[in-house]
Amino acid sequence: MSDRRSALLEAAIKVIARRGVRGLRVEQVAAEAGVAVSLIYYYFDNRNGLVRATLEHANERAATVAASADGAALSGRQAVERSLLGELGDGDHVRDTSVVWGEVLASAVFEPDLRSQQREATETWSELIAAAIAEGIGDGSIPADIEAQACAERLTALVDGLSSRWLAGVTTRERAQALLAAGIGRELGT
Amino acid sequence: MSDRRSALLEAAIKVIARRGVRGLRVEQVAAEAGVAVSLIYYYFDNRNGLVRATLEHANERAATVAASADGAALSGRQAVERSLLGELGDGDHVRDTSVVWGEVLASAVFEPDLRSQQREATETWSELIAAAIAEGIGDGSIPADIEAQACAERLTALVDGLSSRWLAGVTTRERAQALLAAGIGRELGT
Repeated sequence: MSDRRSALLEAAIKVIARRGVRGLRVEQVAAEAGVAVSLIYYYFDNRNGLVRATLEHANERAATVAASADGAALSGRQAVERSLLGELGDGDHVRDTSVVWGEVLASAVFEPDLRSQQREATETWSELIAAAIAEGIGDGSIPADIEAQACAERLTALVDGLSSRWLAGVTTRERAQALLAAGIGRELGT
Repeated sequence: MSDRRSALLEAAIKVIARRGVRGLRVEQVAAEAGVAVSLIYYYFDNRNGLVRATLEHANERAATVAASADGAALSGRQAVERSLLGELGDGDHVRDTSVVWGEVLASAVFEPDLRSQQREATETWSELIAAAIAEGIGDGSIPADIEAQACAERLTALVDGLSSRWLAGVTTRERAQALLAAGIGRELGT
């Protein structure tokens, strides 16, 4: 990806994190990135193209963070824990990505254009977690009778639900993380 | 509550279900209800007052649905199941309420004014579920070592996460319901 396109997407993540997808105007993203509006149309055609590319970029960024754990000698169970709990980690980066994710999900209720991409992104995420659960069943860190796919769908939905409470100020990040850690235990057995 | 105020709130729920909180204009609600805009200002002062009252009304409506199960001779566990699975039931009524809930939660990220009410509503919901879990522990339908409060917070967050996927077209309602039913089993023991 060109540095310039990437810089525009980082600017879009920041604008969405501050104002939401529905408050997003291309002029703000251009101002945030310090470029002319025409450059945004050049790279993304229109506002919808920008929103879709931003979701994709935020997800890739999140996947890179998740994959960075791969080098370590983790059991399948530890990989599940690290990856899911990381979604509620501290740092602006995590928060911004989470806001973008929640925003696109909430906007997809009213904008059918956003749905297929959100569906694919959610499926990819669930599959990554299901694969780590399957590894855990293989290495003995997770009981063999766990249904990896259903369990992954539930745990990622739980992350979504807890994240939205955290971001909305309904619960603290620490409480959300503690609930998630215990929830992983309920799902994967102890 | 006056019939007129109630009719305005029902109209607001319909408008939010179609367009979202952030797309809501008082003129649309007035048109939906077939009244003058001034009547909305008379009852709710301003747009924010209308949004807050609509959330409250949607939650009361949902609580009435949940409480309607109380008459039956249900175990605590059955009450938890009926109440939570009802949040993913069919019928426009359930869907509309769920959209309003998700919208206010998502909007609260950017509108601090909405947070305290959303927090209270979420706490009330969790407490209702925790009370049903405690009843289930009392009547033997739920194991005694379950932490009612944490469990209730997780299950309601799971409902939120699954609802948003359903409403965004990421998963089907039936799949979301099946995942939730199995998730209740993981949380409450089988």
